[in-house]
Amino acid sequence: MKQGNVLIAQGGGPTAVINQSLVGAVLEARKFPQVKRVYGALHGVAGIVDEDFLDLTQETTNNLEQVAATPGSALGSTRIKPDKAFCSEMLKVLIAHNIRYFFYIGGNDSSDTLRIVQEFAEKKEYELISVHIPKTIDNDLVINDHTPGFPSAAKFVASAFSGVNLDNRALPGIYVGIVMGRHAGFLTAASALGRKSRDDGPHLIYLPERNFKISKFLDDVKKVHNRLGRCVVAVSEGIHDAKGNLITTKLTKNVERDAHGNVQLSGMGALADLLTNKIKTNLGIDRVRGDTFGYLQRSFLGVVSEIDQQEAREVGEKACQFALWNGASGSITIHRSGDYSVEYRLDPLVAVAGKTKVMPDEFINKDGTDVTSDFRMYLRPLLGGTMPEAFRLRAPFVKKRLHKKRSKE
Amino acid sequence: MKQGNVLIAQGGGPTAVINQSLVGAVLEARKFPQVKRVYGALHGVAGIVDEDFLDLTQETTNNLEQVAATPGSALGSTRIKPDKAFCSEMLKVLIAHNIRYFFYIGGNDSSDTLRIVQEFAEKKEYELISVHIPKTIDNDLVINDHTPGFPSAAKFVASAFSGVNLDNRALPGIYVGIVMGRHAGFLTAASALGRKSRDDGPHLIYLPERNFKISKFLDDVKKVHNRLGRCVVAVSEGIHDAKGNLITTKLTKNVERDAHGNVQLSGMGALADLLTNKIKTNLGIDRVRGDTFGYLQRSFLGVVSEIDQQEAREVGEKACQFALWNGASGSITIHRSGDYSVEYRLDPLVAVAGKTKVMPDEFINKDGTDVTSDFRMYLRPLLGGTMPEAFRLRAPFVKKRLHKKRSKE
Repeated sequence: MKQGNVLIAQGGGPTAVINQSLVGAVLEARKFPQVKRVYGALHGVAGIVDEDFLDLTQETTNNLEQVAATPGSALGSTRIKPDKAFCSEMLKVLIAHNIRYFFYIGGNDSSDTLRIVQEFAEKKEYELISVHIPKTIDNDLVINDHTPGFPSAAKFVASAFSGVNLDNRALPGIYVGIVMGRHAGFLTAASALGRKSRDDGPHLIYLPERNFKISKFLDDVKKVHNRLGRCVVAVSEGIHDAKGNLITTKLTKNVERDAHGNVQLSGMGALADLLTNKIKTNLGIDRVRGDTFGYLQRSFLGVVSEIDQQEAREVGEKACQFALWNGASGSITIHRSGDYSVEYRLDPLVAVAGKTKVMPDEFINKDGTDVTSDFRMYLRPLLGGTMPEAFRLRAPFVKKRLHKKRSKE
Repeated sequence: MKQGNVLIAQGGGPTAVINQSLVGAVLEARKFPQVKRVYGALHGVAGIVDEDFLDLTQETTNNLEQVAATPGSALGSTRIKPDKAFCSEMLKVLIAHNIRYFFYIGGNDSSDTLRIVQEFAEKKEYELISVHIPKTIDNDLVINDHTPGFPSAAKFVASAFSGVNLDNRALPGIYVGIVMGRHAGFLTAASALGRKSRDDGPHLIYLPERNFKISKFLDDVKKVHNRLGRCVVAVSEGIHDAKGNLITTKLTKNVERDAHGNVQLSGMGALADLLTNKIKTNLGIDRVRGDTFGYLQRSFLGVVSEIDQQEAREVGEKACQFALWNGASGSITIHRSGDYSVEYRLDPLVAVAGKTKVMPDEFINKDGTDVTSDFRMYLRPLLGGTMPEAFRLRAPFVKKRLHKKRSKE
């Protein structure tokens, strides 16, 4: 194989395990004799045009292992979407530093960036192997059974809803939790894994795969509240009406967009406040609370699925193995091969780049307000063996002596 | 000691370890021969007037231990503040069920409730021992070194800020996180324990112990942003101006109050949205994000300090020991006796009831935007030995070959 240097970068939103993939790739790449140096670019493609590289060949294994267990993108990330001029600059830098193997850890926007760079290199007849290492908490990469980063974020969301369900049971009322997920509802759906008893919340789950109607939402909440005296609701930040208009933009005057044209959804509490105000105004229920889980769900230190850690490490290793043993470019994809086991494949970059997977119909119930057992079976093994559980008292009631009726709080 | 039944109830906001105190009291109470039955009242004082009691004598030890490790109030809670008529009804029920030992797990509002009930019983010459078991994530009970529930919530807040700091470092900008705490800033201050390196956030911490000025806040943020290119800010939901007006109420038309007269602060994202909009408008910084930690910080399943678990268990046990060996009413208080060790005392209910402790001056820096080392020394042992840590790469930079300048994102 071609002698030269390896460059690794991280793009898009950080996850709990993105550094596992980085470290998996670095440790594996350092073993190959044709690799002179292993560089890390700071802040993704931005650091490439700027020649901001760390020499990861000169990093201790101990520190790499500690970084692997740390959430966030250790190299820094970027939301830049490179145009042709940008790609031309990137290639100049890759050539100047004799980069022959380029690994980019990211989601579908990042894999598209990699595809453009690779095509550009081929046009210039510069020998370059590019491998996309999958990562996204949205779980929306096509071909893949699931995506590293998603299981840990799902564990956070399930644990959060398990906790707020207990809180809501102790002090009854309505609780609305807003979960990340622009087009795909996987992460919001993960809230269902926080349930244990039949009357546990979330009692309603709203996904971007279905159209959202405020009037139906209010009816749904009212029904659950009438039945249980409380209601916990999981809502995706990406919910939209039948015309595809985001519910969030209905009240936000200045819509912010990133370089990929995506409307800014996280980092504000507007959607939760809109929905809780609608409930207060229309249903006349006193205790209505809303939280937006925000950045905690992708960055929280200490909540991680060990399955996710292992797989994130493996996709980094596999990227090196495909590139350095086989000289093949492409995108690493994860395939479920058993209950539970996975295998990794290398698919063409074009097959993954820029495409978005959403929840299949068999994961969503008929009413569009819950997930199915198929989804629960799909997600459960990904959460790993350390998912905490909630228990409740099972003691019998004491016979009343004054026969008083239950007061209304 | 008087033969009779024991009644235990939980009041106010749930915590991660409030069930440890419940189970500590139940298991201890079941050992005493003068105790016939151990009852648990559902939803605090509401369940007492309603005679909604579980017979916890008929609960397995295994299930009690599992409930102890579960966050939330297993018996349910209440925000009701009993008036005299309510207390009269409560006492009728206590007498009807021959309750001679009454334990109420709660904060300063709950301890005040207990004080009123106890005074009422004494007036009626009904022999009753009442013991307040401390609990609050706000850490605002007087006399106590700290309060069960606070260390676990503090661990959540420190872990959350440690994570969002990494996220903010990867994708630089401004991040504002809103933390619970009406009058006392302890929980917001806990964000400082998420730092490791000198440039780690939170870079600014705003507490209700100091007056908040928007103009100074904007200046502070600008200074940090100029220096580091990013800024992470921790803000207490209870921040107020020099006149004592809450910053939150400046934009909320319909202020909601609970039975204790407290303005509703949690369960909405308005304060974060106000502050991030001010930054966007006044400082012209692009990437400004705000999260409100909301109910997650007191209910999240799986994030708990083992020190907090042990102490919450012990205050429940001690309450029983003081009541059943010594026949003494009062409030259990926690005192730091070493580095790190504690002892428990019984103080008069009036000494704790309805009073609020805030952060002492020596815990807050001169500028009012950070905590001191004294505070960090105070809090660190409470977080326990399982507090996760964040690591960063330490590899050297690669020499530039094209000598390009760092582009602006």
